[in-house]
Amino acid sequence: MKTISLIAAGLLAMSAAVAQEPPWQALPTVAPAPADNPTTPAKVELGKMLFFDPRFSSTGTVSCFSCHNVMEGGEDHRPTSIGVHGQKGGRNAPTVWNAALLSVLFWDGRAATLEEQAKGPPVNPIEMGMENLRAVIDSIQHIQGYRPYFEKAFGAGDVVTMDNAARAIAAYERTLLTPNSPYDRYVLGDKSALTEQQVRGMKAFVRVGCMTCHQGPLFSGPAMPAGTGNFVRFPSFPQNPYVALYDLLKDKGRFAVTHNPADESVWRVPMLRNLVYTAPYMHNGSVNTLPDAVRVMTAGQIGRNLADNDVDDIVAFLQSLTGEFPQQTMPRLPPTPGELLGP
Amino acid sequence: MKTISLIAAGLLAMSAAVAQEPPWQALPTVAPAPADNPTTPAKVELGKMLFFDPRFSSTGTVSCFSCHNVMEGGEDHRPTSIGVHGQKGGRNAPTVWNAALLSVLFWDGRAATLEEQAKGPPVNPIEMGMENLRAVIDSIQHIQGYRPYFEKAFGAGDVVTMDNAARAIAAYERTLLTPNSPYDRYVLGDKSALTEQQVRGMKAFVRVGCMTCHQGPLFSGPAMPAGTGNFVRFPSFPQNPYVALYDLLKDKGRFAVTHNPADESVWRVPMLRNLVYTAPYMHNGSVNTLPDAVRVMTAGQIGRNLADNDVDDIVAFLQSLTGEFPQQTMPRLPPTPGELLGP
Repeated sequence: MKTISLIAAGLLAMSAAVAQEPPWQALPTVAPAPADNPTTPAKVELGKMLFFDPRFSSTGTVSCFSCHNVMEGGEDHRPTSIGVHGQKGGRNAPTVWNAALLSVLFWDGRAATLEEQAKGPPVNPIEMGMENLRAVIDSIQHIQGYRPYFEKAFGAGDVVTMDNAARAIAAYERTLLTPNSPYDRYVLGDKSALTEQQVRGMKAFVRVGCMTCHQGPLFSGPAMPAGTGNFVRFPSFPQNPYVALYDLLKDKGRFAVTHNPADESVWRVPMLRNLVYTAPYMHNGSVNTLPDAVRVMTAGQIGRNLADNDVDDIVAFLQSLTGEFPQQTMPRLPPTPGELLGP
Repeated sequence: MKTISLIAAGLLAMSAAVAQEPPWQALPTVAPAPADNPTTPAKVELGKMLFFDPRFSSTGTVSCFSCHNVMEGGEDHRPTSIGVHGQKGGRNAPTVWNAALLSVLFWDGRAATLEEQAKGPPVNPIEMGMENLRAVIDSIQHIQGYRPYFEKAFGAGDVVTMDNAARAIAAYERTLLTPNSPYDRYVLGDKSALTEQQVRGMKAFVRVGCMTCHQGPLFSGPAMPAGTGNFVRFPSFPQNPYVALYDLLKDKGRFAVTHNPADESVWRVPMLRNLVYTAPYMHNGSVNTLPDAVRVMTAGQIGRNLADNDVDDIVAFLQSLTGEFPQQTMPRLPPTPGELLGP
């Protein structure tokens, strides 16, 4: 009920937006945290260690960082990721930058929070390949050097738990925001921050209809409570040559989670920030360039082909969404106790 | 001729050392650089970027960092490393920490300099799997964002070359020193830096004969010019049960490079710094714990089993060789141009 009224309100706001000045929103500089996991420096410190530690994968080679490279665009520049034993996943790794501002995680929106999301990849047989979450927390507990960091973040006692590990990783991820893009500076008042072409692209972005789905500070949809996703069918107009060329219907999207036929080819609307860093594009990473991504999206969602100058202008606008990446220091990871290594 | 006289001088120094106060040496705080590659901040900055960038492997997933984790012990805590397509290498990854102070690189000493070493793994089919060095530099050149960093480090012109990439990586690696271990502070005059047991272990280390091979600031041998290795047969005494248990003779060591029968089972003497971080041990990563590593080495190189208290004391001494790891900031890597991604 609440969800429906929120969506209705969103649609109203949207219609108003298209008619008047669109509600351009700058990136928040702080990510909200759930009431039971306030962000603290001790959690961020621990979470960063866990995020970079490959020892919680079955081969000891894959960490969160492996596919969410925060030295680049927060993903892995591959069509689909490679996990343990050289196995390839089925979907393009979504960026971890600004993911803290999403209301649902994964391409199909199956996780409501960063905390929940963090428990997925370690036990995915293709990604980190651990047998179960018990095995993950066992391996964290075996590295005794982690205990002081858990105690600093969560207090004394039985605190080296999977829930706390996920909370710490989420806390670190909430620091991964990229504010101050040319677009953000523009909407905050610096009218010199965008080029003329980018301003044209911004207007084309509204006129063409991109903003129907791609609104809000991330361009991923209207503000929604955690766990409520902005889901849209893609392609909505499947009668175009890109669908076969890029194999866009093979993966059934959210249907794989809900098994509801209405969810076939339905996806969380992805954000549009820092796209310069995150080629290739689409859920299957099939589209290499930003101009082609714009063409695929307008053909698939609006049912028409754009003029080249509109494509170029919109691409220029999207390039203005590249923010500032906060300087990261590397964590020091505690040693692997030789006593506990397997044969 | 020069080599021989240097070795002879080394042996003389060694005999003198055993008779008198051993020549304990602290870790240098600056690594020497070759005349044609002085270390500069611009090279270090570029080299760090290249060191962490996985895009110069055939799958885009393996970087220098993958097997030389500077957030840990400079290696990968695995018996042998895993490269592209889940393939396993044959030898334990040597640490990159303090490697700048070695006179030869790789377990078999086949590279004379860090610059030469850096060109090996990218084209090793099991490691980074690139077809050849031309393909490596092509992929660096394709990421246009690298050019300004090469120009800053090497000047204008045709500077985005494999030799310069290797020089930059070497320059970064020359910053990876871990000074100020308890041992270093002890030999520099702070007699409270070691525990009583560690001092006992230090004496046992000399008495037992470890220092015959493991001398110098890295405990990897006497000072030698670049390209001249401190090579020793291991095991020298192959009649002990560890040889079969840990399969120590399977890999023929330096013989694989020289094809000289005299080099069978001959290895570069590895350093002993930061061993707390680098389990498992030996060229094949077959030995999990430091006490077992001490037992294997004394059985194999001195031909006898040590008393448990000597093992414990020597392990305590080895633990005093853990230095301070300099805080690292993460590089920002330039974006992957979508235009240049493969199909």
